[in-house]
Amino acid sequence: MNTSFSEIDALFHPRSVAMVGITTANPNHWTRGFLEGYLKFEFSSRGKLYLVNPKGGDVEGIHVYKSIQDIPDTVDFIIGLVPSRVSPQLIEEAAAKGARFAQFCTAGFSETGDEEGIQTEAALLEAARRHNIRIIGPNCLGAYCPEAQMSFSELFPRESGSVGFISQSGGNTNYLIRQAALRGVRFSKAISMGNACDLNECDFLEYLADDPKTEIIALYLEGIKDGAAFRRSLRYAAARKTVVLLKGGAGSAGARAVMGHTASLAGSHDIWKSLCRQEGIILVHNLDEMTDVLVTLTMLAPATGRRVLLFGGGGGSSVIVADTFEKHGLLVPQIPEQVIRELRGFSQAAGNFFNNPIDYSQSMGPSNVKRALDILENWGGFDFIVNFVVPTQSITAQRFSYSPFSFEHIAKPVAVVIQACLEPAEADKIYKYLTHYADKGYPVYLSFDSAAHALNLVLTHYERHVVQGKAPGVPAEQGA
Amino acid sequence: MNTSFSEIDALFHPRSVAMVGITTANPNHWTRGFLEGYLKFEFSSRGKLYLVNPKGGDVEGIHVYKSIQDIPDTVDFIIGLVPSRVSPQLIEEAAAKGARFAQFCTAGFSETGDEEGIQTEAALLEAARRHNIRIIGPNCLGAYCPEAQMSFSELFPRESGSVGFISQSGGNTNYLIRQAALRGVRFSKAISMGNACDLNECDFLEYLADDPKTEIIALYLEGIKDGAAFRRSLRYAAARKTVVLLKGGAGSAGARAVMGHTASLAGSHDIWKSLCRQEGIILVHNLDEMTDVLVTLTMLAPATGRRVLLFGGGGGSSVIVADTFEKHGLLVPQIPEQVIRELRGFSQAAGNFFNNPIDYSQSMGPSNVKRALDILENWGGFDFIVNFVVPTQSITAQRFSYSPFSFEHIAKPVAVVIQACLEPAEADKIYKYLTHYADKGYPVYLSFDSAAHALNLVLTHYERHVVQGKAPGVPAEQGA
Repeated sequence: MNTSFSEIDALFHPRSVAMVGITTANPNHWTRGFLEGYLKFEFSSRGKLYLVNPKGGDVEGIHVYKSIQDIPDTVDFIIGLVPSRVSPQLIEEAAAKGARFAQFCTAGFSETGDEEGIQTEAALLEAARRHNIRIIGPNCLGAYCPEAQMSFSELFPRESGSVGFISQSGGNTNYLIRQAALRGVRFSKAISMGNACDLNECDFLEYLADDPKTEIIALYLEGIKDGAAFRRSLRYAAARKTVVLLKGGAGSAGARAVMGHTASLAGSHDIWKSLCRQEGIILVHNLDEMTDVLVTLTMLAPATGRRVLLFGGGGGSSVIVADTFEKHGLLVPQIPEQVIRELRGFSQAAGNFFNNPIDYSQSMGPSNVKRALDILENWGGFDFIVNFVVPTQSITAQRFSYSPFSFEHIAKPVAVVIQACLEPAEADKIYKYLTHYADKGYPVYLSFDSAAHALNLVLTHYERHVVQGKAPGVPAEQGA
Repeated sequence: MNTSFSEIDALFHPRSVAMVGITTANPNHWTRGFLEGYLKFEFSSRGKLYLVNPKGGDVEGIHVYKSIQDIPDTVDFIIGLVPSRVSPQLIEEAAAKGARFAQFCTAGFSETGDEEGIQTEAALLEAARRHNIRIIGPNCLGAYCPEAQMSFSELFPRESGSVGFISQSGGNTNYLIRQAALRGVRFSKAISMGNACDLNECDFLEYLADDPKTEIIALYLEGIKDGAAFRRSLRYAAARKTVVLLKGGAGSAGARAVMGHTASLAGSHDIWKSLCRQEGIILVHNLDEMTDVLVTLTMLAPATGRRVLLFGGGGGSSVIVADTFEKHGLLVPQIPEQVIRELRGFSQAAGNFFNNPIDYSQSMGPSNVKRALDILENWGGFDFIVNFVVPTQSITAQRFSYSPFSFEHIAKPVAVVIQACLEPAEADKIYKYLTHYADKGYPVYLSFDSAAHALNLVLTHYERHVVQGKAPGVPAEQGA
């Protein structure tokens, strides 16, 4: 291991943080976003937060020191919001204050590909090594750790969860955390590591592999500098945690973008695919897929198989949801005649069909839905339930019922799909429906296709790599 | 041809419509939705609208006749909102008023699979044939024709467009039209035909093939009753218009659902796939894909090839968008060094990269974006532009700029992708951004993946079946 567990753990639990170079004049400047994150998370209730700008004054009622030297205490963690060229000098000043970690948000380092940027990054690294300061980035957003009340974004959840996220891209970190949080996923830690000139994917992978707070490791990687070392770290992590990987730069244009973005070599997509297959890693192709997989891993109780009971509303929707789930390799078993007869016994509308999918749209109120689900659970010929809801299949906006059912009496795992729509009359209601179920701990998906795809990926992973009945994150080696 | 053009055209342009069985007591009853559609479209400014219910009285200020006989005029088109068992009798009464068309919304016919429903449908058809009345449905929502101010949903667009839609499912008709309308697609006609016991997919296909108002035919089909006849109609239509097909019931569970939904035989998926390949039909797998394809066909100016210039914001987003487009078979050509140097000449942030994708996020205001696009158009080594926008990659909600650019000076086709999100702070802004571009006639997509997929489907269609440079909807045979 390159870096000890306790060293990275200290990075995620700083006692004091200094934001150096924060803009004092313009409250809409991007540097102020970092402060808003720390304020929203009330970092000061747990540690010390210092602001530094040569102009001094104060920001949001917080005193601004004119230099790092003026801070009347040691500083664990420096957030450098300064132009790249002054970063080596900032290390000298940080060292004098006993800093252990320095993060640089600004671009202008090796990712530019020009001599000046490459030299600046080398000088930064040289200064950091000399003073035994570890670098996060440069060209990154840094660390998010809700239990330490540390967040570079005010939009991330305050609560902790079981997912650790390592990302080479700051924008993708924001996107993933915001989208996943909306669906109820919570994180132990996240790190946007940018160019990763010092602390890199290997360090963070091994740390999260050993972190008792992390069960699932999500990884957005553009490229690596040392293939053999990375492979060792990845194997170490995959043997201990469930790992989900999004590899950016799969094609030639993507690889060019990777070089310009974080100065990394992308590597062939086929190599990554076979690596994931060998190490038992779930490979995804974009951040929406990653979100869906994280929702499934963290929120769907482990199913014993891939037989799904599709339970929802609408004839045309039933046809499409069945096709979609079968296309993605899920099984949609037929319901026995005897069970269908029982269901028909208290169903009014003749047009309903009860043959999986079950279309309850025309005749069942909540109490009949409960009754139907009890009959179906008693039959038991499926592994999990997907409740599907399509608001915009209605001829009027107000006539679609968004009343959620209670699935609390259901023993089998339950997932919910609500087809999203941006129509203003519907979007807010869909959001409320989504958060209702997400808050109760159910996995919610926003389209049939994305649900079936993620469920298939996760079930395939369980089939290949996890002893049946064990929770996600517990590998076969440990579970046996 | 089974049915003449003028006969179906009369169906879509009735002079008088009677809603028989509309509920007078409960304004939230589903039957009232039909009335709301006709009121919203001001059908009465063009034709006569009658309401019938044995209770009489009035609804929304409109007199309710106690029986069809009481209507003091002929009635072209009957909308039957009555229980299935009384439908044959309703035909007798309608015939006495000179009705030419009768639609039945209610379920309870052959789709139930039971003897009673099958008998009822047969009796309905027998009565209709005897009186020379054509049946739409039963078990359907019927006809939408904006130019005739005829709509069963108040949520559909008032304006006409070039897409004709035939659907066996009412819910899927609503879903498709509402989702596509949100993105700027407009329709010439749509028909929800349900069980299609009389007028069927062949009649409507041949009608739309000959309809000068229709350029593109979208088709949601669950199954067909006469394969040879359908194949003839499909070939007739595909030779004249661009046809997009969604075939429900591809798998065994989907086929079961089809049988319960509209009493049709689904047929093997492979047969449909090869049929579409042979006839030059775009085959899609769900309604979201169909929406994306219709957006592309109607709103993207025909591109001369598949080389895309990806122009957007964010480093991580640039990597993923490039990967996604290449994965779907689009070409993302490298930009020559000379052009990159020109762009770098007025770009501030060193971190930006200009090698397709072009990340303008850090340094370009609107005037520089225009300048950059001019330089790129002058180079010209691409066939169309995709502007990609990812709101939720930002650390704060309010700092993301939703200011749309103007692409009016751009000669090449332009498409826009904005990654959708239901976060309340973003959803409304995304909606406004989407409608801003849709109103200006640009195709807008809601994810990288759906954009690349639809663009590939449509470009592949053009490559195979359309003479280069010809507009969509103009087949090779006519264009040559």
